[in-house]
Amino acid sequence: MRADQTSTDLTSADLTSADVIRETAARLDALDRLAGCRDLFVPADGSPGHVPVTAYLDGNSLGRPLLATETRLHELVRGAWGTGLIRSWDEQWMALPYRLGDRLGDVCLGAAPGQTVIGDSTTVMLYKLLHAALVHQRAVSGGRRVDLVLDRENFPTDRYVAASLADALDARLVWIDPDPAGGVTPEQVRAVVGGRTAVVLLSHVAYKSAWLADLPAITAAAHGAGALVLWDLCHSAGVIPVGLDEHDVDLAVGCSYKFLGGGPGAPAFGYVATRLQSDLASPITGWMGHAEPFMMGPDYAAGTGMRRFVSGTPAVLGMAGIEDTVDLVEDVGLSAVTAKATALGEFVIGVVDGLLSRRGVRVVSPRDPGRRGAHVTIAHPRCRELYRQLWGEGIVPDFREPGGIRLGLAPLSTSYAEVATALVRIDELLR
Amino acid sequence: MRADQTSTDLTSADLTSADVIRETAARLDALDRLAGCRDLFVPADGSPGHVPVTAYLDGNSLGRPLLATETRLHELVRGAWGTGLIRSWDEQWMALPYRLGDRLGDVCLGAAPGQTVIGDSTTVMLYKLLHAALVHQRAVSGGRRVDLVLDRENFPTDRYVAASLADALDARLVWIDPDPAGGVTPEQVRAVVGGRTAVVLLSHVAYKSAWLADLPAITAAAHGAGALVLWDLCHSAGVIPVGLDEHDVDLAVGCSYKFLGGGPGAPAFGYVATRLQSDLASPITGWMGHAEPFMMGPDYAAGTGMRRFVSGTPAVLGMAGIEDTVDLVEDVGLSAVTAKATALGEFVIGVVDGLLSRRGVRVVSPRDPGRRGAHVTIAHPRCRELYRQLWGEGIVPDFREPGGIRLGLAPLSTSYAEVATALVRIDELLR
Repeated sequence: MRADQTSTDLTSADLTSADVIRETAARLDALDRLAGCRDLFVPADGSPGHVPVTAYLDGNSLGRPLLATETRLHELVRGAWGTGLIRSWDEQWMALPYRLGDRLGDVCLGAAPGQTVIGDSTTVMLYKLLHAALVHQRAVSGGRRVDLVLDRENFPTDRYVAASLADALDARLVWIDPDPAGGVTPEQVRAVVGGRTAVVLLSHVAYKSAWLADLPAITAAAHGAGALVLWDLCHSAGVIPVGLDEHDVDLAVGCSYKFLGGGPGAPAFGYVATRLQSDLASPITGWMGHAEPFMMGPDYAAGTGMRRFVSGTPAVLGMAGIEDTVDLVEDVGLSAVTAKATALGEFVIGVVDGLLSRRGVRVVSPRDPGRRGAHVTIAHPRCRELYRQLWGEGIVPDFREPGGIRLGLAPLSTSYAEVATALVRIDELLR
Repeated sequence: MRADQTSTDLTSADLTSADVIRETAARLDALDRLAGCRDLFVPADGSPGHVPVTAYLDGNSLGRPLLATETRLHELVRGAWGTGLIRSWDEQWMALPYRLGDRLGDVCLGAAPGQTVIGDSTTVMLYKLLHAALVHQRAVSGGRRVDLVLDRENFPTDRYVAASLADALDARLVWIDPDPAGGVTPEQVRAVVGGRTAVVLLSHVAYKSAWLADLPAITAAAHGAGALVLWDLCHSAGVIPVGLDEHDVDLAVGCSYKFLGGGPGAPAFGYVATRLQSDLASPITGWMGHAEPFMMGPDYAAGTGMRRFVSGTPAVLGMAGIEDTVDLVEDVGLSAVTAKATALGEFVIGVVDGLLSRRGVRVVSPRDPGRRGAHVTIAHPRCRELYRQLWGEGIVPDFREPGGIRLGLAPLSTSYAEVATALVRIDELLR
């Protein structure tokens, strides 16, 4: 646990009783420099038809809305949509996917302007960039590079899209089998890449285990073999620094409804390094990717820069929450967000070790905070039943097959007290 | 002009002066049974930084928001998102694309349940359904059916996506050249379809001319040759009856931010006839199209029904306005909406003939109301300059290259007075 997050020097030996855990959580919240951010969110503790939420530990699946987003959506409906009407496309919305992409790239991804764009779902954006990369790599290698390296613990959409594209483009899937409680290592990547490798597709933070991949080393390993790398940033964007430019990443995609606060089904983002943009072609050649969309000419001519990776009309409502969240992350600093994610994770692990291990609960996420994203997954044979019980009581973690409770730690909205509430209750339920 | 819309029996001979036109518009508004619907929309006549809109004639490009949508979005942020949080996926959002698709199908498209789904942009939805249809037709014909029939006046995204898919799938584009002021006829389709035709891709209402294609006859012509037909309903959904089931349509796509009020970049819809669903496969195999998304299993298994045509996480915010608009259309009846669209169009044509023709303005949309959608395009050599001037004054029609002003007639929100304001001002500017 980092010094700037707490002045106490806790070990799991201390965290053996509900009282101590609750007191510790209160002390950590009092010391938390980001604690005030919680007041910026729409209150989660009461609505008609719902049990009030007392502990929300699923901000890594659906982030809570900021009050600013409620206001922004209201103003959008009344203003830019309701009275600006069609004029707002010219005035702001045509540029929005690029402007907001650049802001996201700057604040959260370590990407210089002109490389990040907002649009589509993560699945569709992934399809487009992976398709483009596979076609390009085959072409420049004289047909030699056809291998697509991925891992069996990657998020389903990544695996399914990869498999379909491999079928469609006659590529070959090369599977890595990571430790389910850990993740893909640079050594595993080095062992499989070579002169046939076209693309390496991996998640920065594993959606189950929270394993934080060694992005710099794996990117370098892929490049060493002449491959491109496509990183899925769904579980890192907005909470863990990425350093896309610094580490020479080629391509990335990610979703915005987790730590980026875009709301349910908000659009994804895509990143393509400037050096590659003109060589890659989206398979979905929509009018918004055209160099001059409103000329409506006879033939498609791909736009320059990130425009060519846009297909349809940008989803403006879904960008409101992203904008507010990026503003807030910039305001407090991504490093403070990451530090609190780490500290919350250490607290979870301390409580599991001190209190819950005697009930048979195990941590199945990395214990090394340098290799862990912003959630901690715990396992117990009764996890499915536990999670149902907890939801019924307004304690809301996530559940992931086959038997893990995933505790999402969204640093801007999650308190130590919420963590304590959830874990102490799990202890009671397992008694 | 239909009897139920006006008791006056106007001809263009009457509509020769600004005063008569304004008085006529006032009389028509007073008689309009849908006039009260205008009060249901967010007022468009004032916002900081914008010239107040006095005539909005671009509801066929971006529909105005309903006040109910402002409320629904507010409640969504406070309620289902802000306090329901992740639980709302189980409780309502997972089903929303299907439930709302069914509602849209019922009220606006003539589609029985289980055939319409909301998702993606129109471009992406078109890509998926067209890809699926081309692959299927080739397979069942032993490789013979490779022709994709389309027309040169179709919306750019349709032409661009068709061209890319023809390249990717080794299909052959067969172009129809329609009358630019009219559109594709059944005869033109019959002349080109045959044993090699895989798919006929056309717009129900042409985006420039407003030509309303003879959907039943063209669909029958395609079927007569063993082809599938994919209709783009962007400019008819919500304003012109479609009759998808009645006319045995195979596939359709459309957008929701025009007459369906979804807001800027709201998700598209897709329709696949029940009889075809299990034979077609989406090229974009995202987790949300899986038979059991949350099993997160190793291999993709396409869901049944429309689920298999869903890719990523549904865009919930963008569905709010669609829901309210479908509710309103159901309330007043689609036939009343269509009747007012026709009547508004007749009024436009009457004024152009009576007042503007002497300034050299021509109608380049069908004069036959039975072959016209819900906009009227007028042409004049100075259209581009006119449209800029009008926008600056808060009179907002659309402009489409090479030289047409498109007057969008959204029956729920457009008044005859707005039409009069715009056309009288055009007359003044052309003096």
